[in-house]
Amino acid sequence: MNTFGKALRVTTFGESHGVGIGCVVDGVPAGINIDTNFINKELDKRRGGKNIYSTQRREKDEAEILSGVFDNQSTGAPICIFIKNKNMNTQTYEKIKNIFRPSHADFTYFHKYGLRDYRGGGRSSARESVARVASGAIAKLILNEFGIEIDGGVLQIGNVKAKNINFKFALKSEIYSLDEGIEKEQKEEIENAKSSNDSIGGVVLLRARNVPKGLGEPLYHKLDSAIGELMLGLNGVKAVEIGDGIECVKNIGSKNNDQMNKSGFITNHSGGILGGISNGEDIIVRVYFKPTSSVFVPQKTINTKNEEVILELKGRHDPCIAVRGNIVAQSMLALIIADALLLNATAKIDYLRKIYK
Amino acid sequence: MNTFGKALRVTTFGESHGVGIGCVVDGVPAGINIDTNFINKELDKRRGGKNIYSTQRREKDEAEILSGVFDNQSTGAPICIFIKNKNMNTQTYEKIKNIFRPSHADFTYFHKYGLRDYRGGGRSSARESVARVASGAIAKLILNEFGIEIDGGVLQIGNVKAKNINFKFALKSEIYSLDEGIEKEQKEEIENAKSSNDSIGGVVLLRARNVPKGLGEPLYHKLDSAIGELMLGLNGVKAVEIGDGIECVKNIGSKNNDQMNKSGFITNHSGGILGGISNGEDIIVRVYFKPTSSVFVPQKTINTKNEEVILELKGRHDPCIAVRGNIVAQSMLALIIADALLLNATAKIDYLRKIYK
Amino acid sequence: MNTFGKALRVTTFGESHGVGIGCVVDGVPAGINIDTNFINKELDKRRGGKNIYSTQRREKDEAEILSGVFDNQSTGAPICIFIKNKNMNTQTYEKIKNIFRPSHADFTYFHKYGLRDYRGGGRSSARESVARVASGAIAKLILNEFGIEIDGGVLQIGNVKAKNINFKFALKSEIYSLDEGIEKEQKEEIENAKSSNDSIGGVVLLRARNVPKGLGEPLYHKLDSAIGELMLGLNGVKAVEIGDGIECVKNIGSKNNDQMNKSGFITNHSGGILGGISNGEDIIVRVYFKPTSSVFVPQKTINTKNEEVILELKGRHDPCIAVRGNIVAQSMLALIIADALLLNATAKIDYLRKIYK
Amino acid sequence: MNTFGKALRVTTFGESHGVGIGCVVDGVPAGINIDTNFINKELDKRRGGKNIYSTQRREKDEAEILSGVFDNQSTGAPICIFIKNKNMNTQTYEKIKNIFRPSHADFTYFHKYGLRDYRGGGRSSARESVARVASGAIAKLILNEFGIEIDGGVLQIGNVKAKNINFKFALKSEIYSLDEGIEKEQKEEIENAKSSNDSIGGVVLLRARNVPKGLGEPLYHKLDSAIGELMLGLNGVKAVEIGDGIECVKNIGSKNNDQMNKSGFITNHSGGILGGISNGEDIIVRVYFKPTSSVFVPQKTINTKNEEVILELKGRHDPCIAVRGNIVAQSMLALIIADALLLNATAKIDYLRKIYK
Repeated sequence: MNTFGKALRVTTFGESHGVGIGCVVDGVPAGINIDTNFINKELDKRRGGKNIYSTQRREKDEAEILSGVFDNQSTGAPICIFIKNKNMNTQTYEKIKNIFRPSHADFTYFHKYGLRDYRGGGRSSARESVARVASGAIAKLILNEFGIEIDGGVLQIGNVKAKNINFKFALKSEIYSLDEGIEKEQKEEIENAKSSNDSIGGVVLLRARNVPKGLGEPLYHKLDSAIGELMLGLNGVKAVEIGDGIECVKNIGSKNNDQMNKSGFITNHSGGILGGISNGEDIIVRVYFKPTSSVFVPQKTINTKNEEVILELKGRHDPCIAVRGNIVAQSMLALIIADALLLNATAKIDYLRKIYK
Repeated sequence: MNTFGKALRVTTFGESHGVGIGCVVDGVPAGINIDTNFINKELDKRRGGKNIYSTQRREKDEAEILSGVFDNQSTGAPICIFIKNKNMNTQTYEKIKNIFRPSHADFTYFHKYGLRDYRGGGRSSARESVARVASGAIAKLILNEFGIEIDGGVLQIGNVKAKNINFKFALKSEIYSLDEGIEKEQKEEIENAKSSNDSIGGVVLLRARNVPKGLGEPLYHKLDSAIGELMLGLNGVKAVEIGDGIECVKNIGSKNNDQMNKSGFITNHSGGILGGISNGEDIIVRVYFKPTSSVFVPQKTINTKNEEVILELKGRHDPCIAVRGNIVAQSMLALIIADALLLNATAKIDYLRKIYK
Repeated sequence: MNTFGKALRVTTFGESHGVGIGCVVDGVPAGINIDTNFINKELDKRRGGKNIYSTQRREKDEAEILSGVFDNQSTGAPICIFIKNKNMNTQTYEKIKNIFRPSHADFTYFHKYGLRDYRGGGRSSARESVARVASGAIAKLILNEFGIEIDGGVLQIGNVKAKNINFKFALKSEIYSLDEGIEKEQKEEIENAKSSNDSIGGVVLLRARNVPKGLGEPLYHKLDSAIGELMLGLNGVKAVEIGDGIECVKNIGSKNNDQMNKSGFITNHSGGILGGISNGEDIIVRVYFKPTSSVFVPQKTINTKNEEVILELKGRHDPCIAVRGNIVAQSMLALIIADALLLNATAKIDYLRKIYK
Repeated sequence: MNTFGKALRVTTFGESHGVGIGCVVDGVPAGINIDTNFINKELDKRRGGKNIYSTQRREKDEAEILSGVFDNQSTGAPICIFIKNKNMNTQTYEKIKNIFRPSHADFTYFHKYGLRDYRGGGRSSARESVARVASGAIAKLILNEFGIEIDGGVLQIGNVKAKNINFKFALKSEIYSLDEGIEKEQKEEIENAKSSNDSIGGVVLLRARNVPKGLGEPLYHKLDSAIGELMLGLNGVKAVEIGDGIECVKNIGSKNNDQMNKSGFITNHSGGILGGISNGEDIIVRVYFKPTSSVFVPQKTINTKNEEVILELKGRHDPCIAVRGNIVAQSMLALIIADALLLNATAKIDYLRKIYK
């Protein structure tokens, strides 16, 4: 179950403290210029260690393309990208190899598989998201061909929520904040959590622009379904919302409906999706990240022998996973839309006539 | 893309105003007692027309089992269940066959496929959910074997939110309300919307109990992923939340973490899932339904020639889709967990030894 | 595992002596004219009871379209076709409900599932192929749009093999013989087997014409792979051959290679496929059917208690399954090529530009 | 489409003259001892350059495990194995970069994708089979747990066919011949072809022993379907046969049927599969390989500008691909049976009771 996507299929492998992390991207149309620099720039956005707001695990992730590209072009063959692990610290984990960290995957992996790669969380580590960003870069190269753009940023940290959304500012902000006016306050939320050896939650806002009408495959691979599937699959994500999702439950239909005139939709409460299919408006998604579960205050837990212990965790962790999670979530949205773009190529016989006649 | 599930696979077919709606449930282990009465009781919970809080489309849905059952037992062959459409009113739709209803799938289906079955929404109609409930009933028969139970109810209508959760009360409530104390108020929210020719949103709370530890397939078919995929695929659902999902973004890690002692988890902020895998605690999901888009107040819209028109819709619709959506969402949760139960059968070599040695 | 195909997906259900047999065809592009008469004509070719060379189970199979078609056009929604069982004779099977017929699926179904629908073979019956022909008819309607044609016929019965291949003659022949000159001899092979209460094997030859270059998805969904998968999945098929398959093992490369000149390939030993992808030449497949296992001479076997018994089978069976199997195999080839046609729509970025720009 | 298998899923990547070849094996149950030596021994059987009967491309293939193994055990995470390309000779291919080699994938890849990695056939090269053997080794480690054994050897080269089958002898034979008595003659067939700058076809015989009754998923993932799919997907394979496949078409049912007594099946014409499901007898498969298309005699062909040219090919090729193909085909059979073993774990509710109760 390490593969996702229908027409554009991504298979990933690798563990936090193994040789490295990789992805195989299958179904990439032939003839796309594959720019390794672009992939590395994407990886760099996700990379930790750049400031105090992320993990101190510093590693310059470099994409090594192992297959599927010839003369800088996609050939139709599967593209494997491998990113070596460089900055590992296995010793930290030896001490807790028999202890379950509260709200970690430790406990469930142990019970599912009967054994566990305890080095840095093994397969369950957020380190795996480097493969999502690498494959998302391929998706973005496909989307670029059609002018489709993905933006994102941090909407909320703890109780501090953006008022004025500015996706361009997010690109410059150390914490990818969407609102220059409250960035400082958001940073303080993280600093406060960090200085108490604790962590804090956050919300990410995503937007896709210029998405053609008609993407999304009803009934069980709707655009919403793919968003729900892949966003809730990100480490630490506990809720996903499309358009006015949560607020609209309090609303009445006549106010929540997006009425239309000749120029198109008058509002976009729906977040760009109707009946699971893109309607040409901006696709709007909110992703809710819990506070990092790795905190450095003492916690009650048990070990593999079911003995009670007090855990005093050490290590290198993001105080707020929403910050870098924002980059990963954007990559996922790119993958979702690129997949939908490919799938839609057979929606009507007219499209096939354009290809084959 | 009309199939979902990995080991327990459901394929559905049928339109609102066609011959009927059906599902093919594949992967059902042989030897399960398939009780048609139970399936019909499940369908009856979803059925409209019972009171003023749901659509006035009255039809007694009856499950006809077309295959896969012999001597009342599942044989391992695919189980097809067909439910005839009985109470159709196609004329209502003739008038709007060239008009796009605001916030409906009309517009997007037309643009995706180049044509549209306008009779009652065709494939995009909530009528399709009868197939979800029928297949969910099969899933529940599997779960029953292992004591796994699914509950659900309406948490919130408009601004009225349950304070005391009581799943047993929901079974008796006409609107599946979870709180006897505020049921009346919630009903009034619906009545008010209805009497203004309008509709209202709502939130559904789901719970799964006695789920064994270890269900869910990382990394891309985590239990959360499947929940996100299938809940956000339901008509009108715009957000999904697991455990304390939305609230936990404001929290710090040390408070949000579920610490443990010898008896197990001390809290359940995680909603029963860690790292995408069940941890043995109750699985808790909230599903956010927008207000029904079919409202009877005049609305601005366009027709297929891009001319502006005022739509004055008539027909039979649920004033609050969360009410019956609650039943459908429970069915989906049953299907998700049954699928995960089957998938987990090959997680470790010990399980295979139990089977083959 | 009752679904096949990647872009054009077919799910089937139903048993020999149940209510009927059905298929759900998903992924059909919208806008194709769905002609029920054509489907019924296809079913009629497969139907038994027309002469002494096939089963005496006489039933006029009629396709009932339950979904996916509106105003005679495919809508993009799944098309369910249901064919009622009309001529069942369950009593014949009561007597052998605890006996395993030699070389039947009885024994293996019983061991796999722990129980068995013994009525006419249940799910393992060749009756299921009516669903393959119905869905194959949909595939042919897609192929017709692009001038792709499927032909087939009986090449060999027992030791009597066609010398002059004539696909047009096959259409008129009661046994779908490809060679008018030896049809009589082939019929006699069947008559001889039948009069000895026995059965006989046969070989079917298939051809697909006007297949565009480029269909087939390397490396594991090559055109050859799909042919191998679906032909060897037909009841009674024990070998499949592409082009000069079996003969070419005795050949040297320089003679077996298809050399080229300006006009194209000089020979077609490869049977129209190179590297798993169509090369524009005729696709040539041979399918080898074993003699029907249901024969009426006494046979040694065991029952479910592992007691030895002599089986004296009665019932209605084809003396040579290759005859009607020829029609089913053609349907499968149509489905394989239609699936490949759809899958190929995203092979290169140029195709997507034609659609989206 | 670079993934195969249902429960045990293999995704491969890599080209003949790229960095290397890899596979990601997903769905491996946790707790299996993963012995790198064993994998390397398997790779060594496939390796060329050992004698005059195979390619002179000499490279010691070494499996590098990139993920999924911890403390020598499978963890349930995907296992990525990478094998570096070491002995490449790209220059040979520069000369023919615009020429289509007769009966190669050159022509079809070019037409499908609009461009082509001409270095040694790129993705279409038989070099890719190193990934099949590496993943097949993992499958064999699973099968070993249950005493299931895979054997194979060369049955026929050109016109020289084995009379006395001896799988043990094949292990020692330089050409994996199954018959010590005719090995010399078979070698001569290869030597003759080679000395004429030509190639020769061959047939491989495979056997699986101790396969439990009940493996194979009807109706479209029967054991036969999987065998057809994966064997016909091997480079150069043009026919596949199960049991007495080709011969049985000449036979009558009463002779071809496998009758039974208390001790089991009296014969095994069926090759161990009935109704798509293993019956406990040996599984017998024959795989037909065409003569290598790369031959060194002058051949008529065209270039990418559709100009006629005479090709005088140089390079390093197997004179008979059946020889090393035998090793690859065994690996595929191991993968097929391991996949079926996992899939069967949910066939009946009794199995789930053993796991969960």
